[in-house]
Amino acid sequence: MAARRLIPLLDRVLIDKVQAVSKTAGGVLLPESVTQKVNEGIVVAVGPGRRNKDGDLLPTNVKEGDKVLLPEYGGSQIKLGDKELYLYRDEELLGVLKD
Amino acid sequence: MAARRLIPLLDRVLIDKVQAVSKTAGGVLLPESVTQKVNEGIVVAVGPGRRNKDGDLLPTNVKEGDKVLLPEYGGSQIKLGDKELYLYRDEELLGVLKD
Amino acid sequence: MAARRLIPLLDRVLIDKVQAVSKTAGGVLLPESVTQKVNEGIVVAVGPGRRNKDGDLLPTNVKEGDKVLLPEYGGSQIKLGDKELYLYRDEELLGVLKD
Amino acid sequence: MAARRLIPLLDRVLIDKVQAVSKTAGGVLLPESVTQKVNEGIVVAVGPGRRNKDGDLLPTNVKEGDKVLLPEYGGSQIKLGDKELYLYRDEELLGVLKD
Amino acid sequence: MAARRLIPLLDRVLIDKVQAVSKTAGGVLLPESVTQKVNEGIVVAVGPGRRNKDGDLLPTNVKEGDKVLLPEYGGSQIKLGDKELYLYRDEELLGVLKD
Amino acid sequence: MAARRLIPLLDRVLIDKVQAVSKTAGGVLLPESVTQKVNEGIVVAVGPGRRNKDGDLLPTNVKEGDKVLLPEYGGSQIKLGDKELYLYRDEELLGVLKD
Amino acid sequence: MAARRLIPLLDRVLIDKVQAVSKTAGGVLLPESVTQKVNEGIVVAVGPGRRNKDGDLLPTNVKEGDKVLLPEYGGSQIKLGDKELYLYRDEELLGVLKD
Repeated sequence: MAARRLIPLLDRVLIDKVQAVSKTAGGVLLPESVTQKVNEGIVVAVGPGRRNKDGDLLPTNVKEGDKVLLPEYGGSQIKLGDKELYLYRDEELLGVLKD
Repeated sequence: MAARRLIPLLDRVLIDKVQAVSKTAGGVLLPESVTQKVNEGIVVAVGPGRRNKDGDLLPTNVKEGDKVLLPEYGGSQIKLGDKELYLYRDEELLGVLKD
Repeated sequence: MAARRLIPLLDRVLIDKVQAVSKTAGGVLLPESVTQKVNEGIVVAVGPGRRNKDGDLLPTNVKEGDKVLLPEYGGSQIKLGDKELYLYRDEELLGVLKD
Repeated sequence: MAARRLIPLLDRVLIDKVQAVSKTAGGVLLPESVTQKVNEGIVVAVGPGRRNKDGDLLPTNVKEGDKVLLPEYGGSQIKLGDKELYLYRDEELLGVLKD
Repeated sequence: MAARRLIPLLDRVLIDKVQAVSKTAGGVLLPESVTQKVNEGIVVAVGPGRRNKDGDLLPTNVKEGDKVLLPEYGGSQIKLGDKELYLYRDEELLGVLKD
Repeated sequence: MAARRLIPLLDRVLIDKVQAVSKTAGGVLLPESVTQKVNEGIVVAVGPGRRNKDGDLLPTNVKEGDKVLLPEYGGSQIKLGDKELYLYRDEELLGVLKD
Repeated sequence: MAARRLIPLLDRVLIDKVQAVSKTAGGVLLPESVTQKVNEGIVVAVGPGRRNKDGDLLPTNVKEGDKVLLPEYGGSQIKLGDKELYLYRDEELLGVLKD
């Protein structure tokens, strides 16, 4: 089942959530309640986009490999093989993170 | 009654739900509560699609035979002969599964 | 009063509900609670359709004589002479049944 | 006050409700609770219609003198002289009755 | 303060409510609870109208001096000098009364 | 901080509320509960307006210096230096007052 | 993690809230409950804007460096490195402040 792949429909975006390593400046690991209010994720796959009223395809605003900031609520959990992934609508994603 | 056929109207999609066989890496079968949060199904029939404001027909995003990922909620159960099938609106379907 | 006729307005569809005869493969009649979750009906009359924003008439997706699958909820009961009929909006109808 | 007249605005329709005489096939009059679920009425006056987004006037779907089927809920009661009449939006009317 | 004037904005209509004299055919005055379900008013001033999506101005459907039928609910009371007047959106007005 | 200025965004309008002096014909000052149901204000600044679907700018319906009638509810209080001002959307304003 | 940057998606605006120094005319610092009803912030980054129905990009109404007035409610808190920033939709911002 490892080789199964999900191609999202419309403007859905498949996300692999990233557990942000949270350390204080001094290197102490912070407990989860302090750090996990907003999540990050990697875009695994994107749908073809949504069509506007004229029938033109509006592609998603993110692409495979983007590291994105996720909203506090929303997204539906799905299971593909052993992985737990998440589906969001493209317009729910808050921003793209650059290092 | 076996030969009866349903042709969905508008952008409705007729789905035959697939009970995903769930095994851990070691081959142990998992109880239903762990594995069944999201369902899969095979597209049995699709409607002609919905018309946009200009009157153009927008065909459905899935086609007969597609294996699709279904949302946790939604879909209405119908009975055709001995089979229990489900109707979804095309835009409720989350994605297409490829092996 | 037998000769009275109702011409539906807009995209309304007049339906005569059909009590589906429900038998198991072995011919046993099933009690109502098992079989009657979704109803079927025959289209008795259709309205001229709804106009889109440009003023063009969009005809209904079903026509007189079609056997249709009805949603579990919705539809308003009306009485014409001795008959009990039902009015649905065209887009509430789920699909067309073919034998 | 008998001569006062109401000219409905927009797509409003002025209705004079008709108390349908309800008899069984054998001529017995039925009590009100059995027969009065849906009402009938005669169109007394119609508004000029509603304008679409381009500013074109969309006339009402019924005309003065039509006998119409009324929805179970909706409509606002008004008093003109001694008469009790009802105002509906054109699209609330269910159908036109022909004898 | 008597000379102050209100020019309504958009499609708002300024109304001076009229207490309809209510008499039975025989001339008996009816108590208020029987007669006052729907109100009448005189149009004192109208706004320039609302713009549609193309930016064209859609003038109000009533004009100064019209006697109009008011809905049972809605309208906001304002005080101009000694007078109590009411503001309605143009599309809330039910109809124009002619004697 | 006295020199700070707020330029409203979109169709927002900055209002300086006016405490209407309320006297009866005989010159008696009325208590606040009787007189303050609707407020008046002076337009201090207006935003550039909102864009319609074609991208054209629709300017606000009021201009700096206009004396306007404010709705009973709505508007958000802001503090600029020592002054308490109010922001409304242009379409919330009821009318323009002329002496 | 100090060098990480967030590029907002669509019409989102990244804001660094400013704690307004609040002094009375005489120079006394006011307690927080009196002064903090409305917040101010500096625009750190803006998204490319939202597309209208024709697919044209509508840029945000504010730009990097603008000092803006924030609504009392709304905005979602995010953490970038050591900083606490806030994301708003462009149309939630009330106005631009000029000294």
